[in-house]
Amino acid sequence: MSVTLHVCITCRAGQTLDEGEVRPGARLHAAILDAGVPDGVNLVPVECLSACNQGCSVALSAPGRWSYVYGRLSEANAKDVIAGASAYAAAPDGIVPWRSRPEIFRKQSLARIPPIAVVPEAAE
Amino acid sequence: MSVTLHVCITCRAGQTLDEGEVRPGARLHAAILDAGVPDGVNLVPVECLSACNQGCSVALSAPGRWSYVYGRLSEANAKDVIAGASAYAAAPDGIVPWRSRPEIFRKQSLARIPPIAVVPEAAE
Repeated sequence: MSVTLHVCITCRAGQTLDEGEVRPGARLHAAILDAGVPDGVNLVPVECLSACNQGCSVALSAPGRWSYVYGRLSEANAKDVIAGASAYAAAPDGIVPWRSRPEIFRKQSLARIPPIAVVPEAAE
Repeated sequence: MSVTLHVCITCRAGQTLDEGEVRPGARLHAAILDAGVPDGVNLVPVECLSACNQGCSVALSAPGRWSYVYGRLSEANAKDVIAGASAYAAAPDGIVPWRSRPEIFRKQSLARIPPIAVVPEAAE
């Protein structure tokens, strides 16, 4: 299944930045692009995931699946984020066995949200 | 629009509980029920929103809308949670003006996730 990996590109990760300095969130996004986004994962930049005091942050989501938000990340975590996103995409139901998740996903969860309920009107 | 309010009922909110003591998350859920869930809001208990060190926590979601997770809540916040959920349900696009959000929603955001992308296959 095709899943979406949102990366907050406006995150300052609590740092005071010089004018023109690339924000940590944008650096994480660039590092993920550089490392190579696998098939089945759509990388989408987003302005603010409202997890500002736990940045940098990313979110994984797909129709009918639990969504996940992870934080306290940096560009150094790009490859692990990709590995976790790939595992999420590959899992038939999006639920990756605990031990198969990268450590940053096991230890730096900010939240998860159950699959969005299909309202009866929409199902008709 | 009908929206879903998930409340984590397994949350201990960092407390050590006596055997048989009702968990803070379950108490928040009960307080919301007692206060009265308005039309357009589906209250759904959930076991763990993976925001354990920021509990109690709730999530708001609906098809095609941003999802929101809020934390550091207690049963004392039940009415404000309901007010925030009602405003989310009433806003045509789910985006409630900042000043119309209850203070707990302005100050205790854990994360938000963009609307889940409809994959091209699913749209056909």
